[in-house]
Amino acid sequence: MPDETVLASGLVERIGLNGARLHYKSADNTVSKELEVPDHAVALKAITGLLMDSEKGVIKEASEIPAIGHRVVHGGDTFSKTIIIDEKVKAKIREYFSLAPLHNPPNLKGIEVAEQLFPQAKQVAVFDTAFHRTIPSRAAQYAIPTSFYEDHHIQVYGFHGTSHKYVTQQANKELKKESSKIISVHLGNGCSITAVKDGESIDHSLGFGPVNGLVMGTRSGDIDQSVIFYMIEQLGYTAQEVSDILHHKSGMMGLTGYSDLRDIEEQAEKGNRQCQLALDMNAYRIKKYIGAYAAAMNGVDAIVFTAGIGENSDVIRGLVCRDMDFFGIKLNEEKNKERSKELRYINAEDSKVKVLVIPTNEELEIAQQTLELIS
Amino acid sequence: MPDETVLASGLVERIGLNGARLHYKSADNTVSKELEVPDHAVALKAITGLLMDSEKGVIKEASEIPAIGHRVVHGGDTFSKTIIIDEKVKAKIREYFSLAPLHNPPNLKGIEVAEQLFPQAKQVAVFDTAFHRTIPSRAAQYAIPTSFYEDHHIQVYGFHGTSHKYVTQQANKELKKESSKIISVHLGNGCSITAVKDGESIDHSLGFGPVNGLVMGTRSGDIDQSVIFYMIEQLGYTAQEVSDILHHKSGMMGLTGYSDLRDIEEQAEKGNRQCQLALDMNAYRIKKYIGAYAAAMNGVDAIVFTAGIGENSDVIRGLVCRDMDFFGIKLNEEKNKERSKELRYINAEDSKVKVLVIPTNEELEIAQQTLELIS
Repeated sequence: MPDETVLASGLVERIGLNGARLHYKSADNTVSKELEVPDHAVALKAITGLLMDSEKGVIKEASEIPAIGHRVVHGGDTFSKTIIIDEKVKAKIREYFSLAPLHNPPNLKGIEVAEQLFPQAKQVAVFDTAFHRTIPSRAAQYAIPTSFYEDHHIQVYGFHGTSHKYVTQQANKELKKESSKIISVHLGNGCSITAVKDGESIDHSLGFGPVNGLVMGTRSGDIDQSVIFYMIEQLGYTAQEVSDILHHKSGMMGLTGYSDLRDIEEQAEKGNRQCQLALDMNAYRIKKYIGAYAAAMNGVDAIVFTAGIGENSDVIRGLVCRDMDFFGIKLNEEKNKERSKELRYINAEDSKVKVLVIPTNEELEIAQQTLELIS
Repeated sequence: MPDETVLASGLVERIGLNGARLHYKSADNTVSKELEVPDHAVALKAITGLLMDSEKGVIKEASEIPAIGHRVVHGGDTFSKTIIIDEKVKAKIREYFSLAPLHNPPNLKGIEVAEQLFPQAKQVAVFDTAFHRTIPSRAAQYAIPTSFYEDHHIQVYGFHGTSHKYVTQQANKELKKESSKIISVHLGNGCSITAVKDGESIDHSLGFGPVNGLVMGTRSGDIDQSVIFYMIEQLGYTAQEVSDILHHKSGMMGLTGYSDLRDIEEQAEKGNRQCQLALDMNAYRIKKYIGAYAAAMNGVDAIVFTAGIGENSDVIRGLVCRDMDFFGIKLNEEKNKERSKELRYINAEDSKVKVLVIPTNEELEIAQQTLELIS
């Protein structure tokens, strides 16, 4: 930084499971090896070892790193900005374990290990929820007794904030408008959609947890709450079982039996009606959110598709934008089908609303925010 | 019928409670009296007694009534039309007790009592769910494992169908278009919104149960399902308690402590911020559904407000239609404020979308459908 060169990248998958693998890549070296990784601490130490490896590394010693940016999923209602981590910040991240039980604990572990390995570096937390702290009360609160908001902080927190912020900033550079209305559609493992007015999130489809809104790989998205009570009271499931179904056995998987969208698209193409229905439901849900957010902002200048599916599925993008000329949305079918890793426009010439595909880059956004904070 | 004259009307309130009252009204007589009403059978008998009363009645004997139209809330996935009731129909209404535990049992009771009191009459069932049977699968199914749909019939059923059908038919007569896109906003004790394309319901905010969608008097409307699991798993409520909160202690009541919208509007006017927030949330939710349904239909020709709040609250209508010119929606503020019991336009001259207030009349709709069926 600041020239955005990636010196090295790496990841460890299947932490705590059999067949854990470490992947590492620098300009001159690629490493991919199986190793025993009981927890996140061991994983981060292994990656750090490679970073400083005399042969394959990119730095000589830990003190060359002035700052480390950490993605932290849940910042509750405390953090609306990226912040340098101290004991108080860590205590808050711990306080939010109950709000993000799968994410905040390993996030904090990563911070603690990084503090040991890079004692001279500043540790910086970039929160997934921070970008959504601008959502006004009318959209951020639920219509339940106010005590749940006041005493238990039940409200919309939202996620994928770093991604939504990154791609809408890119879109704003493209639009070059004083004031802009952008709808950002993040379709990856998790899916969410955000209404971004003048650079600020004003509404978002993921709320208190990670399962509301759009249809996802295994998550249901929006569902009538009566279904949950019926499953518990009439069908005999426990609340825990219903939660498990809605998180891990629903969405595209629950509808089709397939977890990979490419398989579903292929089957639909071959005439599998259940797969076609799943694609239609998925796109229809996105379409309705676009309409809702156009109402929330009284207009829309651009729609941005991002993340794995958003960047690669011309099928989903096509279904979403079909029959949307009332909104001034019109695709260029050829451009939609082109594959690329670059920012690109896929709207027709005469489309009032710009439709863009913008590859997300959360790591870059975290690095930029970290650099900005320590400069 | 068919000239739509109301010969008599009546109702019994607080059935099974202390202080039950019977109200009855004909052209020449009005009765309002307290009496003991342990159940719906006694209530219907009391009303029928007045109908045939030698002094205050409007008919001499039961055989003058050729048909009786019954509002039945839940017709499951069986009934897409109004039907003459036989034993099979009654068995089905009974089968759906678990889907509408508060409504279908007294509905069936009413049919059985009417069969006794008017043995020569045809009994006709008009289902609240029937109008919504045209909603396509992409909107009618949830993104959960398909077994819940196939084996347990979990899907969108929808409610207020008789009202939505009635007012959109009225609107279609006004619009005089070959093909029309109408969004019908029913705001009463319960609230719901329907996208009606060419006379058919294609999407609707109440789903499997009566609590989803818009913010209601005591019902939450849309809520992130994670909130339910958090209340159960982290705050220690039972599923039954959470269901009770979302049905009876949420909505405008949960947000403000007031159950009557007029009180809330008055308090907001006086500067009560929580009341203002509740109004804003309520209207914002409706606004987003209008956007979503405009996307579902790729346009909107007219918006219809109906039922108690929809017909009487210029405040809610005003908040919903404010800043909606992107959609071609523009109110005439003067017309919006006028009070009337008639069908009326409240849009500005240059509004592309017509905005109408249409008093709903479910009784008339039921009478018309009943007459049509027996003719």
